[in-house]
Amino acid sequence: MKLLRFGPVGEEKPGVLLGDGRKDCSAHFSDWDQEFFQSGGLEKLQQLIETEGHKLPNVSASSRWAAPVARPHTIICVGLNYSDHAKESGMEPPKEPVVFMKATNTLVGPNDTVEIPKDSTKTDWEVELGIILKKDALYLEDEAAAADCIAGYCLVHDVSEREFQLERSGQWVKGKSCPGFSPVGPWLATTDEVEDVSQMRMRLWVNGDLRQDGSTATMIFSPAHIIHHLSQFMKLEAGDIISTGTPPGVGLGMKPPTYLKAGDVVELEIPGLGRQRQEFVAYQAS
Amino acid sequence: MKLLRFGPVGEEKPGVLLGDGRKDCSAHFSDWDQEFFQSGGLEKLQQLIETEGHKLPNVSASSRWAAPVARPHTIICVGLNYSDHAKESGMEPPKEPVVFMKATNTLVGPNDTVEIPKDSTKTDWEVELGIILKKDALYLEDEAAAADCIAGYCLVHDVSEREFQLERSGQWVKGKSCPGFSPVGPWLATTDEVEDVSQMRMRLWVNGDLRQDGSTATMIFSPAHIIHHLSQFMKLEAGDIISTGTPPGVGLGMKPPTYLKAGDVVELEIPGLGRQRQEFVAYQAS
Repeated sequence: MKLLRFGPVGEEKPGVLLGDGRKDCSAHFSDWDQEFFQSGGLEKLQQLIETEGHKLPNVSASSRWAAPVARPHTIICVGLNYSDHAKESGMEPPKEPVVFMKATNTLVGPNDTVEIPKDSTKTDWEVELGIILKKDALYLEDEAAAADCIAGYCLVHDVSEREFQLERSGQWVKGKSCPGFSPVGPWLATTDEVEDVSQMRMRLWVNGDLRQDGSTATMIFSPAHIIHHLSQFMKLEAGDIISTGTPPGVGLGMKPPTYLKAGDVVELEIPGLGRQRQEFVAYQAS
Repeated sequence: MKLLRFGPVGEEKPGVLLGDGRKDCSAHFSDWDQEFFQSGGLEKLQQLIETEGHKLPNVSASSRWAAPVARPHTIICVGLNYSDHAKESGMEPPKEPVVFMKATNTLVGPNDTVEIPKDSTKTDWEVELGIILKKDALYLEDEAAAADCIAGYCLVHDVSEREFQLERSGQWVKGKSCPGFSPVGPWLATTDEVEDVSQMRMRLWVNGDLRQDGSTATMIFSPAHIIHHLSQFMKLEAGDIISTGTPPGVGLGMKPPTYLKAGDVVELEIPGLGRQRQEFVAYQAS
């Protein structure tokens, strides 16, 4: 299944992609949120599609694509998780996943306009594979148990401000939590839709120029490894988003480093998980 | 006013402290949460207390003290924010606030039992002054605007696992987000209840031995400074908790370093903000 959400900011409704068409599920489910996943919602949705999928109303083609899940309790990110990206950065591959959090109010739709933050000169791009959890998880026994917590995968743009992240006194939060910095979607593909999560091409273009062209094949810690590892330190929750790191080709790694400016258009894609397109605009005092 | 919450885990109700007695406000308000603060709830509560405070029902003395606010969207912490603690740690005082996040599911009541995490050998204590916000805040103009976002103050125990925080591959999240690691309360004292936030004594005892005895007088970045600063990087939200760092005397700083073990009792206090007491217990597989 491919789960999505649609509609204006603050009024998002749940839907699914059937063939090429978006279908409205809001008569049957309130949202794709923690409660939905915790209560066996994916099975109920599967049943709905099988029995009444053909009756689901169409979503208007002009309706905004929202993030495919409701605002979660936590957005967790893994840093330096691609061996070729670590090499490019001149850093040793980490021995264990490097973990940080993004503010959850950064979550936006895959094609929403992103405002470059006030006083930012180093806004950068990162195409990533995202995981959505369908179960709460604490102290998981092994990676098999961890894999069993995965609802599915999605495309994540982990937008980052490098000065805020790296030059403003320790920890990465400041460069990761600016408004609009987590475009997610267009859809959540359930695990059965993804043939091999370790062989997914990931590309990102800036104004049509290919900047990142990587693959999950060079990922150091797999999704199941990450979830198992994290669950030893914290309680993960159904609906949480885990973004698993970026391959080489970010602006910080270019010579000279190159960052986004107003008017730039970023597009990114993982086959099977869809494509995003964001226009970056200048900060405007409101 | 002193806002509090009471009742079993998952069934907390809002209340206030009047004199020495806890009063039940659940007939008038659903919770002390983002929506309450955003909708001018503090003014409505003030009016309720003035007109009908004497009619509010008592809370049973045996009822659990919960965290004084509902689970927020974000718990933000400031590290190394006390000049004497930085000195003790042999570190330069930071030029700007060092910021990290804790998982919000770590929030518990001030006297709840805390389980030492599985495989933990370095569970440590940190008494802190917490801020609760009453407004959303982004790109604030100055510290006066930041001060105007503060609903009040509370006592926070920023429990920390030093091996997970410092020895498990970068960033601090892993040592800060274990279950039960954020005891908050017993109450939220609104700003008018606090005479001078820069002159608050902060103490913490382990099994009756005084371990931390500091004061907000040695705080490097004030609450208003922190809020103004954070708002330049992210949108803060009403109901969010910001914990402002710990004075000297943590277990990591002892010679030799000394950590909590099962059976230890930690007590902490900031006059005007109340007192906490937690028993630490061993991890038990469930």
